[in-house]
Amino acid sequence: MSIVKPSTLPGFMELLPKEQILFNQMRDIIRKNFERAGFLPIDTPVIEKSEVLLAKGGGETEKQIYRFTKGDTDMSLRFDLTVPLARYTVEHFSELSFPFKRYAIGKVYRGEKAQKGRFREFYQCDIDTIGNGELSIANDAEFPVVIYHTFKDLGFSDFTIHLNNRRILKGFFAWLGVSDSQNALRAVDKIEKIGPENVLKELEESGIDREKGKKILEFIEIKGTNDEIIQALKDLNIDEETFNQGLDEMSELISCIKAYNIDEKNYRIDLKIARGLDYYTGTVYETTLDDYPKIGSVCSGGRYDNLASYYTEKTLPGVGISIGLSRLFYQLEQAKIISAEDKSLIDIIILPMDGFIHEGIKLLAKLREKNVKVTIYSEDAKLGKKFKYADQIKVPYAIVLGENEVKNGLYSLRNMATGEQEEVDFNKLVEKFSK
Amino acid sequence: MSIVKPSTLPGFMELLPKEQILFNQMRDIIRKNFERAGFLPIDTPVIEKSEVLLAKGGGETEKQIYRFTKGDTDMSLRFDLTVPLARYTVEHFSELSFPFKRYAIGKVYRGEKAQKGRFREFYQCDIDTIGNGELSIANDAEFPVVIYHTFKDLGFSDFTIHLNNRRILKGFFAWLGVSDSQNALRAVDKIEKIGPENVLKELEESGIDREKGKKILEFIEIKGTNDEIIQALKDLNIDEETFNQGLDEMSELISCIKAYNIDEKNYRIDLKIARGLDYYTGTVYETTLDDYPKIGSVCSGGRYDNLASYYTEKTLPGVGISIGLSRLFYQLEQAKIISAEDKSLIDIIILPMDGFIHEGIKLLAKLREKNVKVTIYSEDAKLGKKFKYADQIKVPYAIVLGENEVKNGLYSLRNMATGEQEEVDFNKLVEKFSK
Repeated sequence: MSIVKPSTLPGFMELLPKEQILFNQMRDIIRKNFERAGFLPIDTPVIEKSEVLLAKGGGETEKQIYRFTKGDTDMSLRFDLTVPLARYTVEHFSELSFPFKRYAIGKVYRGEKAQKGRFREFYQCDIDTIGNGELSIANDAEFPVVIYHTFKDLGFSDFTIHLNNRRILKGFFAWLGVSDSQNALRAVDKIEKIGPENVLKELEESGIDREKGKKILEFIEIKGTNDEIIQALKDLNIDEETFNQGLDEMSELISCIKAYNIDEKNYRIDLKIARGLDYYTGTVYETTLDDYPKIGSVCSGGRYDNLASYYTEKTLPGVGISIGLSRLFYQLEQAKIISAEDKSLIDIIILPMDGFIHEGIKLLAKLREKNVKVTIYSEDAKLGKKFKYADQIKVPYAIVLGENEVKNGLYSLRNMATGEQEEVDFNKLVEKFSK
Repeated sequence: MSIVKPSTLPGFMELLPKEQILFNQMRDIIRKNFERAGFLPIDTPVIEKSEVLLAKGGGETEKQIYRFTKGDTDMSLRFDLTVPLARYTVEHFSELSFPFKRYAIGKVYRGEKAQKGRFREFYQCDIDTIGNGELSIANDAEFPVVIYHTFKDLGFSDFTIHLNNRRILKGFFAWLGVSDSQNALRAVDKIEKIGPENVLKELEESGIDREKGKKILEFIEIKGTNDEIIQALKDLNIDEETFNQGLDEMSELISCIKAYNIDEKNYRIDLKIARGLDYYTGTVYETTLDDYPKIGSVCSGGRYDNLASYYTEKTLPGVGISIGLSRLFYQLEQAKIISAEDKSLIDIIILPMDGFIHEGIKLLAKLREKNVKVTIYSEDAKLGKKFKYADQIKVPYAIVLGENEVKNGLYSLRNMATGEQEEVDFNKLVEKFSK
């Protein structure tokens, strides 16, 4: 028989089991936080009709899409979880309750140029709240709170959730007499990457003179506590409708987040944040790990006026965030912030001497009954090989089971990391390991 | 703007949130049982190189495959979790420990003819144990035990795990002088569907005369307890190598399952079970719900001699089972065995009176701190609309929050199902709902 070399496609992440355990733990933490905040699960198909998925059409995204036909049907793999959410919300509109708070955790597909840390198949973890016609700003406050608890539970304490409102920027630009606010937003958004001087240049190139450019830079660099920034913005006495709407929304956002009583050191108004995507209209979020600025934003999102204009004439405003879990996992592992070295789902492995497999199973069954996480090595092999296996699968403890152990009901519990042994009976095992 | 009608492709399951909650609960139960039995998670890409995925080639399956090219690359969506397991095991061979016990829960794709209860995208939940060269029969015993605990945890008590060993059937056929054992196996496997007379006919059509056919029928109908059947098989005194190997394996299998101490009413040797798939070589499993025979097998699998002959010259024997979760969920829901009617992940919703949203959030934050599952309705609306929302999302309890409640710290807790109200303070809420 001819042998085919087994390999995955380039750009597709695949983990070893110990890494997968760690990945799944992170995914579970995210899911738990989404659920406790009242978001409901949905799970849309990976494949959609191209006509539906690409209703918006055009753009960079379309080139990256996995699109194909089967029979006469033109279909595509989803490239994010937002377009499927729009389709889902309209398709099931009459069966949903609004505000519709949904979470989705799943794989999405983009045929991007293969490069380190960029994946063509990756997990996104999204929450969004969709209103029917209207949606109060109090909803916007839930997202920083979910981000806060999620990243706390993921083991981080030093992170910053950057908050801004596009209306504040757009209103300020309008007040300055800048006509093309999209280009200005895009230039401002790059300041952390390219520095103020280059932002000024970009602004000039899009027809904003140096003096206005400097005013913009001064504006976006306003610093202080959240309350101080809001006061500073009020003190500017800018009489511009969009600006004032944005400022009111931001004040209400901060008031609501305060009511949630999360640590104020972890969230901050940051007028530099604009978000590249054109469809955000109000609040925007970015989250950075304070000690790892190079990783960039680990969780972003914002408010949009209309989720599903391609599928319905109803107005469905929404607000949401997304965590790109595959990329985040990769970056955290590369930066050695997380490590899969010691990951095991099991606490004890039973290594039966030859002929003692049935006795081994009996002990295992009794321990599992007591919620001890235990497995067994069932092959005939030398004891050394059995211990090697225990070591490889990173199980913390091993018990060798033979005639003496069965007769006396006493077991040598070996700590696989230190090699220390401890004589224990069944009750001691249960006491020590029962979860 | 032109409106595209939003819809999914035919044959793709999509659930409402309350159904998705139920689906996820089932998936979580399965995963928990896989993990506690020591199986390690892997998560392979949905897309694989066609060359790799279709190395085996040919057959019904290939027609059903979602296969396409992007750039110069010929790729396909996985149609099961077994071929990716084979590829994974060989590709990562040097980094795995054997026996390699892995679980995988994920979506697979088959472009089957659309029909009720058949899905083109569906979840499979698989566990397999892969040996390097050898793999003891004790491993085969783990699978009925996992099936047992999983279906118990899913809420079933009356189910039967049918056990057989292909070697027993093949050996018996050989002993009878039947040369084409594959056809005989296939005919025997159909007995529940087509009845004994039709099996006899099929056997005759494949060249097995009526007298031998009757002996085969008599053989596969041997009944009794597991021990009685093993004794009956021994009493046949069949001197045929494959038969005796199969019988030894079955005796050891039953001994090991007994050591696990699960209820013997839930597992039974059933000589009629052969499994359609050609690659099973020893132990085979099927699981039926006693009260719903029409649903067919809800969990099947077996032992195979060689997992990955297309990718390696190493011999990798394995044994595994699979639960087709999407189909199972659909069938259970159709048969009204499960119901998503009252599914909520949240216990309480706070309905703030207009102007009391910040106070509502404060109460919510204090309750969440105590692990109470609580959400809030943040829109300005009449109280009736707020209650309607609470009713729609199936949250069991609601609290209206206004001036009195904030002042007195006493809340009317409304049972949404009965309409009953109870006056409670914060501590009472925590006591009642803290998980």
